[in-house]
This record gives sequence, C-alpha cells and structure tokens, in this order.
Amino acid sequence: MAEEEVKVFGAWASPFTRRVELALKIKGVQYEDIEEENIDVLKNICPLLLNYNPVHKKVPVLLHNGKPIAESLVIIEYIDETWKVNPILPENPYEKAMARFWANFIDEKCLPAIWKAGMWSPEGEREKAAEEACGCLKTLESALGGNRFFGGDKVGLVDIAANFIAYWLRIIQEVTGQELLSAEKFPVLFKWADEFVNCSIVKETLPPKDKLVALFESRTSQ
Amino acid sequence: MAEEEVKVFGAWASPFTRRVELALKIKGVQYEDIEEENIDVLKNICPLLLNYNPVHKKVPVLLHNGKPIAESLVIIEYIDETWKVNPILPENPYEKAMARFWANFIDEKCLPAIWKAGMWSPEGEREKAAEEACGCLKTLESALGGNRFFGGDKVGLVDIAANFIAYWLRIIQEVTGQELLSAEKFPVLFKWADEFVNCSIVKETLPPKDKLVALFESRTSQ
Repeated sequence: MAEEEVKVFGAWASPFTRRVELALKIKGVQYEDIEEENIDVLKNICPLLLNYNPVHKKVPVLLHNGKPIAESLVIIEYIDETWKVNPILPENPYEKAMARFWANFIDEKCLPAIWKAGMWSPEGEREKAAEEACGCLKTLESALGGNRFFGGDKVGLVDIAANFIAYWLRIIQEVTGQELLSAEKFPVLFKWADEFVNCSIVKETLPPKDKLVALFESRTSQ
Repeated sequence: MAEEEVKVFGAWASPFTRRVELALKIKGVQYEDIEEENIDVLKNICPLLLNYNPVHKKVPVLLHNGKPIAESLVIIEYIDETWKVNPILPENPYEKAMARFWANFIDEKCLPAIWKAGMWSPEGEREKAAEEACGCLKTLESALGGNRFFGGDKVGLVDIAANFIAYWLRIIQEVTGQELLSAEKFPVLFKWADEFVNCSIVKETLPPKDKLVALFESRTSQ
C-alpha cells in the first residue's frame, strides 16, 4: 500500500480529539498529531467544513489523503469504514443502530448535562443539571448491562464516545470536589471506567493527568 | 422472504416521522403507520430506548420484527443497511462522511436556528436567530453545489434530513408572513426545494398542506 497521509488536527486536552486518536490506534493506523493552532492550513482545502461544524468546534478534523472530515463521531465511522481491521462498530445493523443511538445520547444529553452541573456554569442551573446528569449516568449504566465494555468484550464506538466520563470527569471531580460519578452511586459504570482507562491502547490516548489537573485548577481559580 | 413486521410509530405532522417513511418508500418496504398515541405498546419492549431518546422526542420509532429503533437519522441508516436496494447513503466512505456531516448540520444548527427565528419564540431572540438561520441556509446552498439533489441526481440522506426546509418551512412562512427561504435570497436552495417536493415518492410522504396550515394557524392565534 502506498504511504497514506493521515493527520489529526486537534487539541491535547480535548476528549473529542482523543476519541479520533483512539479509533486510529485501534486500527493500527499511523497518524500525525497537529495542534489546533495550525489548523489554518486546512482553511484553503475546505472552508465550508471548517466554518460550519455543527458542534461549533473546529477540532478534531481528520485529514486523510488531502480530504478533511470534521466531527468526532462522523470521523470514527469514517475510520471504521476505511480500515476494516478491528471493527469499532458492530456489523449487525440493529446493534450498529444501538451503538449510534447511545453515542448520540452521550453527546446530546450526557455531556451537556454534566457540563452544566459543573462549577463553571451559573449557580442557579447547577442543581437541576446535576440531577439530570445523574439520570444520564444511570441510564448509561443500564445500557452497559452485564458487559465489560459497551462494545461487549472489547472497546467499541460507545466506549470511545464515553471517554470523557471515564477519565476527564473523574479528574475534574478531584479538582473541584464535586462528585457525580462515584463507585457508590454507579458501581457498574465506575468499574467500566476503570477497565476502560486501564486498557493499554486507551492509555496511549489519554492526556497526562498532571497537565489536566493544572488546566482545570487554573480554570477553577479564575 | 417471510413476511416482515415493519411499523413506524410517529406523528402525522412530524418531519422526523416523515423522513423515516420516505426512507422506507425509497426502499419499497411496506410498513404500518401508527400514530404516537399508541406508542405505549412499545414501552414493555424497550423502556430504556423510549425514555431516553437524546432528542427528547418519543417519535419516530421504527419497530422491525420486534426490535425498536429511535431517532430518525439512526433509523434511516438502519433502513439503508437492512434493505440494500436504492441506496440512501453513498457507498464511498468519504462521501458517506460528508452526508452524515450535513445531515447533522441540519439537525444541530439549521433546524434549531430556524425554529428560534420563528414567531413562536420570544421576540428578543428572533432577530439574531433569523440571521443565524439565513447563514445556515446559505451554507446548505453552498453544500448543494451544482447538483439537483444533495444526494447527486437522486434523493439521499441529506435531502431526506432537509425535508422540513423544503416543505414545512414554506408553509409556516405562508401562515406567519415571516420569510427566511425565498427564491430571491436562496435561488439554488429554493429550486432544490421545488424539485424535492415534486418527486412523486416524496409527495407520498408529505402531510396535506391544508391540514398543516390549519395546525399552524391554530398555533399562531393562541
């Protein structure tokens, strides 16, 4: 196979960027990691894509042989369809639909609720958001069923989409003292988080804890 | 092939429900159309799915041989993967990623902006939302390029996702007198909307105009 150009334009602390890197690592695809400050080079390739990313974020963008793709879940599906080894989505259409459903649930319900529940949002909104966030975590826990991972016995789309919950959230909880996800409240999800962050391939895509702590501490003290 | 159970739990006026029906018609799949009042029968099959639909809506839900799937875009992909005839998504992974990107753009940016710009939202928010909505429509117009449909020479995922813009929006505009999409401002998108609603297969899935007018008029006079 001719050498391929695979570049990830991202931000080191972004769970969305790390999702894409994890998908590439699962496939064993070599890529170049480019911090978002350098994203301007992409603007000439596809201004539409960069200016109108639905999730209001510029990164991550995957550049594959000159073609840019935005939005982490769209990128992961692209990666899964382009490199067939080690499937990330199930092959069965119904199971695939369920994986997409839960990945969307994480992006559209869980993450916004968790973020709103945090100490960086207006005080009046926090309590209701915390309640909603706990409801979301409880639902996710049910979706996990008795499986080791959402993807069954291996990391799949939903696990990748939930990376923030497994790693970033627990670090933020340590910094702020607020606790949403605990072993007492969500034993099954907590165990999943441990299993997930301890997979060797996942570990390679997690930003160093001390750097994240410093980032969140600087934010907390503002 | 044994007879299949295909049921769409939906609401007659809902563009999301109509998306699913259009996808089934493109595939030539016979289905039973069930109004949402009867969705309780599904609750025992999969309470998780129904209670935690990320887009906060219960319908549409597709029931296929006893298995429920929620969220219109997830359902359409399921339909496309289950019945292979007349593909709705492109086969090429990059084109497929672009189709998913634009379908998400419609759901996450266009539709919320159009809705906020409408006379049913607080007056103070409308002007800014109208500006954003026009920006979205302009972007969509660029995405269409010189093609007859977003799917090229035939209706595809993005066309189906944009059904509200082609049909519902123009009826709402007639009722309220507010105009976002016009032939003057968006000639390319306007022409697309005409082409789309005049496809015979699309027509079969559009609710009667007089019923929609009555619905929106009753809402306007409240």
